[in-house]
Amino acid sequence: MGRDLSALFDPKSVAVVGASNDPAKYGHAVAAQALRAPERRPVHLVNRRGGTVLGRTAATSLAEIGEPVELVVISVPGSGFEAAVDDALACGARAIVGITAGFAETGPPGLARQQALAAKVRAAGAVLVGPNCLGIADNTTQLYLASDRFAPGGIALLSQSGNLALELQLRCAPHGLGFSRFVSLGNQADVTLVDLVEDAARHDATRAIAVYAEDFGDGRAFAEAAATAGKPVVLLTAGRGTASARSAQSHTGALTTSADVVAAACRDAGVELVATPHEMTVVLAALNGTPRAGRGRTAVCTDGGGHGAIAADAAESAGLTVPELGAAAQEKLSTLLWEQSSVRNPVDLAGMGEQNPHSYGDTVGALLALDEVDAVLLTGYFGGYSAATGGLGGPLADSGTAGGGSALAAGELETAHQMAGHAARHAKPLVVQSMFPDAPSCRTLAEAGIPVFSASEDAARALAAMSEPEADGPRGVHPLPPAAPPLHDTGYHGLRTLLTAAGVPFPAAREITDEAQLLAAAEEFDGPYVLKALHLLHKSDAGGVALNLPDKDALLAAHREMHARLDAASYSVEAMADLTDGVELIVGVNRDPRFGPVAMVGLGGVLTEALHDVAFALAPVSAARAEQLLEGLGTAALLKGVRGRPPVDVAAAAAVIERITTLAAAHPEIAEIEINPLLVRPDGALALDARAVPA
Amino acid sequence: MGRDLSALFDPKSVAVVGASNDPAKYGHAVAAQALRAPERRPVHLVNRRGGTVLGRTAATSLAEIGEPVELVVISVPGSGFEAAVDDALACGARAIVGITAGFAETGPPGLARQQALAAKVRAAGAVLVGPNCLGIADNTTQLYLASDRFAPGGIALLSQSGNLALELQLRCAPHGLGFSRFVSLGNQADVTLVDLVEDAARHDATRAIAVYAEDFGDGRAFAEAAATAGKPVVLLTAGRGTASARSAQSHTGALTTSADVVAAACRDAGVELVATPHEMTVVLAALNGTPRAGRGRTAVCTDGGGHGAIAADAAESAGLTVPELGAAAQEKLSTLLWEQSSVRNPVDLAGMGEQNPHSYGDTVGALLALDEVDAVLLTGYFGGYSAATGGLGGPLADSGTAGGGSALAAGELETAHQMAGHAARHAKPLVVQSMFPDAPSCRTLAEAGIPVFSASEDAARALAAMSEPEADGPRGVHPLPPAAPPLHDTGYHGLRTLLTAAGVPFPAAREITDEAQLLAAAEEFDGPYVLKALHLLHKSDAGGVALNLPDKDALLAAHREMHARLDAASYSVEAMADLTDGVELIVGVNRDPRFGPVAMVGLGGVLTEALHDVAFALAPVSAARAEQLLEGLGTAALLKGVRGRPPVDVAAAAAVIERITTLAAAHPEIAEIEINPLLVRPDGALALDARAVPA
Repeated sequence: MGRDLSALFDPKSVAVVGASNDPAKYGHAVAAQALRAPERRPVHLVNRRGGTVLGRTAATSLAEIGEPVELVVISVPGSGFEAAVDDALACGARAIVGITAGFAETGPPGLARQQALAAKVRAAGAVLVGPNCLGIADNTTQLYLASDRFAPGGIALLSQSGNLALELQLRCAPHGLGFSRFVSLGNQADVTLVDLVEDAARHDATRAIAVYAEDFGDGRAFAEAAATAGKPVVLLTAGRGTASARSAQSHTGALTTSADVVAAACRDAGVELVATPHEMTVVLAALNGTPRAGRGRTAVCTDGGGHGAIAADAAESAGLTVPELGAAAQEKLSTLLWEQSSVRNPVDLAGMGEQNPHSYGDTVGALLALDEVDAVLLTGYFGGYSAATGGLGGPLADSGTAGGGSALAAGELETAHQMAGHAARHAKPLVVQSMFPDAPSCRTLAEAGIPVFSASEDAARALAAMSEPEADGPRGVHPLPPAAPPLHDTGYHGLRTLLTAAGVPFPAAREITDEAQLLAAAEEFDGPYVLKALHLLHKSDAGGVALNLPDKDALLAAHREMHARLDAASYSVEAMADLTDGVELIVGVNRDPRFGPVAMVGLGGVLTEALHDVAFALAPVSAARAEQLLEGLGTAALLKGVRGRPPVDVAAAAAVIERITTLAAAHPEIAEIEINPLLVRPDGALALDARAVPA
Repeated sequence: MGRDLSALFDPKSVAVVGASNDPAKYGHAVAAQALRAPERRPVHLVNRRGGTVLGRTAATSLAEIGEPVELVVISVPGSGFEAAVDDALACGARAIVGITAGFAETGPPGLARQQALAAKVRAAGAVLVGPNCLGIADNTTQLYLASDRFAPGGIALLSQSGNLALELQLRCAPHGLGFSRFVSLGNQADVTLVDLVEDAARHDATRAIAVYAEDFGDGRAFAEAAATAGKPVVLLTAGRGTASARSAQSHTGALTTSADVVAAACRDAGVELVATPHEMTVVLAALNGTPRAGRGRTAVCTDGGGHGAIAADAAESAGLTVPELGAAAQEKLSTLLWEQSSVRNPVDLAGMGEQNPHSYGDTVGALLALDEVDAVLLTGYFGGYSAATGGLGGPLADSGTAGGGSALAAGELETAHQMAGHAARHAKPLVVQSMFPDAPSCRTLAEAGIPVFSASEDAARALAAMSEPEADGPRGVHPLPPAAPPLHDTGYHGLRTLLTAAGVPFPAAREITDEAQLLAAAEEFDGPYVLKALHLLHKSDAGGVALNLPDKDALLAAHREMHARLDAASYSVEAMADLTDGVELIVGVNRDPRFGPVAMVGLGGVLTEALHDVAFALAPVSAARAEQLLEGLGTAALLKGVRGRPPVDVAAAAAVIERITTLAAAHPEIAEIEINPLLVRPDGALALDARAVPA
């Protein structure tokens, strides 16, 4: 259900404590904003010196107001914050917005102060945003408690940075995008990102949720909230590089998460992950109510080949495909176009648009109608004819290519309307890149909800956000299973027992501590044998593994040699697996402090480190999702059989991944668990070694 | 020296054949442009019907003009083109610009017509641009023979697409970038991209050369011209994906080149390769006269941590580094800033900029002064204070963060001037990302030549273009050596002989055709042996290679078995190399129709295909460059020794690469040559197999 934040976003009354006439003080800006909708609810200004603030009589204290106040904004010096919170709660506040800084971000004593405050607020049945935040706003309830104005619209913006929120707001405006809400996250002492995502998901006026965060708090809960929000969630975050992680730690004391883990959580949760405010704006413009694009098979259409080629490359770089059209489709397009047009995809009108602008709309309509096309990217000159006569002439005022004058302009505008109709009728995305994004024809498209961009790479990125190449694949954030009884023996054989019980196949093996046990073990199964010294961190590097020992004598000799050298407390005698035609994988689960158990799969052996060809997902991972992860590896070709080798049993490997990730998710006492190598053969998978590290 | 194009870019007189009053005709647009500078040189309009064109009397033919014309633009229907060229040459034309289409782009007959025309023009000592082009312009000589106007500036734009040129022109304007010249390349029947790059290199007013090309013609010569241009060359091209290659073929019949080869040629030639007009504009803005940034160690500076983290990630994604500053540097910065500022890098003023805008300039100045910093990226709010009072208020008009008013604005403007001074004094790049790129402070910076962008990724891309991470490394396009006597025996042993003579080490080997020869060979060197069946395409896949044969008997048995199965005409008996601690590479040279011999190096064996972890460079490749290529591989860690293995002899591998690429470059009769595997051991490199394919 999530927390009730109604007192935060639609309070019956508001007070700003620390309201000031001094424009250099934040309490001035917030108070000025709060007063923008005086008819909506009572707004009280409090300043301990009283007097007139922003033309109103200021109360010297909350108590002086003489009636309960539902939401209190506190912007006072740090030393006065606790007293102000006490006053607010005494005054009946059900929500507090803490602007004041100097808490968790300054170190452990500040954190302790903050925790005490949060506990007090919660005990009183109230909620607290911040402290160290820049305020909140809700355009749907005329609540303005931040220094900046946000144009109204469908985006709920939840941000850990005030400046980035400001940049987003500036960038969104030209796209006609506005905001339902804004919340400056601050230190999240009480109300967290997760609470706010859950509330925004329930908020009818919010159509998309935009988040800038550096510290995810309960990252797993964030992923779950995003996965079930029922509306697009777009996440801007830093931390891909070492410098940005350093920065996040410096300026908020944030606990940063590895970029691999954040990316995996976003993929699983269906969150669009972006790297810059510009990219976030492009994605928000794309997701603003337009249909999704199925598998991303994109038709590129232009009049003048250069733009088609550039856009096709941009589309493929963004993860879309631009397949050659089938013969029937090409035939159909040929009847609409002239001889020199290219109809293979990219589709190039080759000058026909200048003869008859309707060929643009006719072609786009025909492309949208094709079953083999999920989306259309129109790129290049379109807009130029109406720009030349629409007061945007500029460089085109004497351009020969716009020479047809007003007939061309009128035709272009007409065909823009028709294009919008085609897009609506086929419920497939149409995205436009135009040299003239502000031309009347392009504005017509934009008003019909068709995203128009001036840069090819932006149009391609938008289309990628609108398509769901993995739509058929298994995604989602699986809930953590209930904790199993803790594993006490995290040694090799204890772990094998646990994994075997969970259905992970291993070769036969016995733990032995002397030669008599070794010989007895060798009686139990056939050679060749493997001998491993146990309780060594990197058995193999330390010379603690002997492979392919053909018989009992070789096994005995290997044990003598190894024991003399390593003096290990125990050893494992195992049946040597048949490595022919096998591929070795590494499969592990690490427990991330924010996102919980995270699975990692990749190619095993010495190449793992060299290549970093690994895939991550939140654990537990279903077998279907595991297959997808394996097939997404750079080295996936090895699994399918190269140079005449048979393909290996990916389904068996996926089953092992499901089992170990499910098991690991139920064992919070294990920090790391790993099967390395997992031998995958044409007819099954076998765990050849495993290790676990207690938390 | 290059061709003399003075008659093209600064003719004494001009005629436009096909000049028209009909605004739908291209001859109208070109004629109108040509008349813009009537005082500079005589401009004659020719229309076969005579009469008045654009308010002037039109001649009915070139002959009717009655005096020689140095440059003739021809925009007539296709059937009249040859006659118009004849007339032009008869009239003394030394340069012709062919607008008319319908030649090579329509197929072989059109190509033949075009070749005949080019030969005729050349025989007359004239030059021809096009046909199928959109004209030329030279702002330095007031020559306007294209339909669009190009604002004057330092960029020579050479483009195979008119619409992309138009988009570039629109994009460059807001950055204050203009053009020295524009040439629409058309079919390059006579004057080629290479001629035009060479001429632009000599052209004093040209500071950077911007190229859009799909077909590079003589790509090797293009790379050589770019490498020696002495000014930045920026190349926009398509063809990274399959669709764009299809498109280029469709619309110009262009012979496209693999994206790997184009990228390799650009790296070798120092050409900035870009993927979109937007990216090209960013790079051109960056290279507009600003200093280069050494090794790319970037200090990121912001006031408000979010932007610093985002920009740091963007910088690292663009290939720059954002290293933590040394203790002394941090100390120095601490004296300039306040306690809550972060000085590690990213440097975060943490609100100090709002107290004292001069802290921006002081910090940027201190960072530029550091030896450990090559460039500074200022990101975020800077510009906001002057925007709020500079008529750009908008969303900030009532913003609390701009609350300091005009004192802040004045301080910001002052510090902008100081920053510009710091950047000039230290001759290091400063690039700015601002939410307010049009604010007075940002305009001050831009006017001082400091690039200002609104998007973080653009600022990072610009800085990457200004830095030379490989500045110390060996680059450049090595000239092709003179052709060696052709190799007649491209069989295995012929090739070994050739490569051995070139200094490539191989294990001992003898070619044998019967058992007696086999036994004799085995006497000549010790086992273990390798036996290879020769004259098979994929020896190894066909079971034509037997490894590790311990002695003469095993060799004989292997030969009998193999010969019974494969019946090969001959076999090779070889000494088995010691594979311990070795890494197998593949080294090859392919002859590209455009770029000539291109070297490819990568990890050998079954992984080569799966990983596509290969590097390309124009051959011949020096040993120093070869080391760089190897160290740039994704799997380079394997060469340095992983998991306790010793590092391998990269210098020996590089020497082999230099030798085989030099040899291949001298043998145009070889289409492909390859050593696979090249075994690189801790103490040397050894070619274990080789093959060549005749052209």
